[in-house]
Amino acid sequence: MSSEDGKPVRPMSANSRPAPASATRVRPRSYSRIFSIAAASAPDMPPAKTKKPFTPKLERFLATVAYDGTDHIGWQVQTGRLSIQGELEARMSRILKTPIVIHGSGRTDSGVHSVGQRFHFDAFWPHPCSYLVHAMNSCEQNGLLVTQIQRVAPTFHCRWHANGKRYRYEICDGYPPPWEARFCLGLGMKTVDVKLMRQAAKLLLGKHDFYAFGANHGQGMEKENPVKELRRLEVRRRGKRITIIAESSGFLYKMVRRLVGGLLRVGEGKMTPERLLAYRKERAITSEVPTAPARGLFMEKVFFKPGSFQNPRVLRSYKDSDSSE
Amino acid sequence: MSSEDGKPVRPMSANSRPAPASATRVRPRSYSRIFSIAAASAPDMPPAKTKKPFTPKLERFLATVAYDGTDHIGWQVQTGRLSIQGELEARMSRILKTPIVIHGSGRTDSGVHSVGQRFHFDAFWPHPCSYLVHAMNSCEQNGLLVTQIQRVAPTFHCRWHANGKRYRYEICDGYPPPWEARFCLGLGMKTVDVKLMRQAAKLLLGKHDFYAFGANHGQGMEKENPVKELRRLEVRRRGKRITIIAESSGFLYKMVRRLVGGLLRVGEGKMTPERLLAYRKERAITSEVPTAPARGLFMEKVFFKPGSFQNPRVLRSYKDSDSSE
Repeated sequence: MSSEDGKPVRPMSANSRPAPASATRVRPRSYSRIFSIAAASAPDMPPAKTKKPFTPKLERFLATVAYDGTDHIGWQVQTGRLSIQGELEARMSRILKTPIVIHGSGRTDSGVHSVGQRFHFDAFWPHPCSYLVHAMNSCEQNGLLVTQIQRVAPTFHCRWHANGKRYRYEICDGYPPPWEARFCLGLGMKTVDVKLMRQAAKLLLGKHDFYAFGANHGQGMEKENPVKELRRLEVRRRGKRITIIAESSGFLYKMVRRLVGGLLRVGEGKMTPERLLAYRKERAITSEVPTAPARGLFMEKVFFKPGSFQNPRVLRSYKDSDSSE
Repeated sequence: MSSEDGKPVRPMSANSRPAPASATRVRPRSYSRIFSIAAASAPDMPPAKTKKPFTPKLERFLATVAYDGTDHIGWQVQTGRLSIQGELEARMSRILKTPIVIHGSGRTDSGVHSVGQRFHFDAFWPHPCSYLVHAMNSCEQNGLLVTQIQRVAPTFHCRWHANGKRYRYEICDGYPPPWEARFCLGLGMKTVDVKLMRQAAKLLLGKHDFYAFGANHGQGMEKENPVKELRRLEVRRRGKRITIIAESSGFLYKMVRRLVGGLLRVGEGKMTPERLLAYRKERAITSEVPTAPARGLFMEKVFFKPGSFQNPRVLRSYKDSDSSE
């Protein structure tokens, strides 16, 4: 995304609505510099037909990224800190040779992992998308892996067209082995009653005000509607591993981790399922419902409104372009 | 381990032979200070029977530790760097309230992981060993997990009684997902022929001079006999995952990683299995046989001479001791 004078412009916030599609298609300075050489005619030759200057047509791409969030400050770019968004933008700008700004379908916190985080960006890439996936992954990985890139309609927006998300939280009995310790909360000497946790989970399901499970309401960020539709809240046990799956129309800040924290308190027998339900109804933010550590949390899937990324703009044929890129 | 004057003494090197069993059983200063209070009689009471001063009897323990070596400088203690040995000694000294020195069955390099690394130490611990395991794991884990501790004969030595080791190397097609990236070498765009690798592995088996697969021969370290009995060198494929298992009477410095590097060159078709065999016979250290990265390597198992850690010294009954510890 570039302004008229060619300088890259960072949107004020990842939450701001994107500029209209026409504005995002302004030709960046870097392309014009490359192709103006091809357009110039040799000095002692008859003046060549004035070639139409090359205008790379930007397309919108939707990508999926998996990451190990342990060493990252979270999704959002922060000056001088390693963030997922910052790392992805740096790689993409290097490959596409022009400043690229990406828009995530949401922001994950410091330490939270992802399996299916989605983001979109606008770029000129006249090759198959799989080549871009390879280019993105072939450098030092830093715990990031782009698993898929596809062309989508230019009107698609990764955040405004999302209508739900699924998170997964991994817990294990005792202490996890070192190769799972970054991705799983160990219970140590504690034991939990999964049946009680399932009871509590059932009580929380449905469209309700989840204010009690949010954090930092309206502190430095826009006020969010605390009414969410919690479609799924499952507690599974398989051997030593307990997995909690939460699917909702949207989540408040730290909501999954506070839901898990509450369920664990119930499982440990320190709170009844009814008490947890009462906290939700009373809209009471209490230390009785702790925030579970980030390390067990995976952003698993983003759901989009049906048909929202269809009708990708037809790709300009590779042979038509003056570019050798 | 303490000298006569009670000050903790670090052995010159982890390779040095242990002091004779009698020397290691000298009572450390910290114990004597604690128990001299109990032995002293009250001032206005008739003189109590002179109690025999408490002498904690040190026992030898054998432990198993699993670790993620990515963030460690390797097994060996190095000043100002995070090492496995240093971390284990610090934890153990804190729990046992006396300086403890541990002896590993071998040293792993920076970045190499372990499933079954073993070490021994001498300590006074009149409780079940499982309590010590819990105490070791209940602090911040830092990628380390002590999986087992057992009492062994006081003559047992973790290094001198080892007669073989098994290593495992993990490779995967393409790029590994972020939760496996620390423990697996991704082949990226390369493909390898596992059949050719198996052929080459078969040629290397047996008791031979493996000088060509060592590194830094005699540079700052004792000269090691390069004749080793390579009992097992298997290349397995399961889906996208390739696992190489190497078992030998002993390994030279970086030997497994150089064996894997050689096999991968063969698998890529850049070298014939016969050429790899020729390098071994010629004792030629060449860049044709590269050293594979540490990240895929796991120290899997240590084999001990039969019966070497049997007959543990009978535990002094807990009630006999004057200690409340």
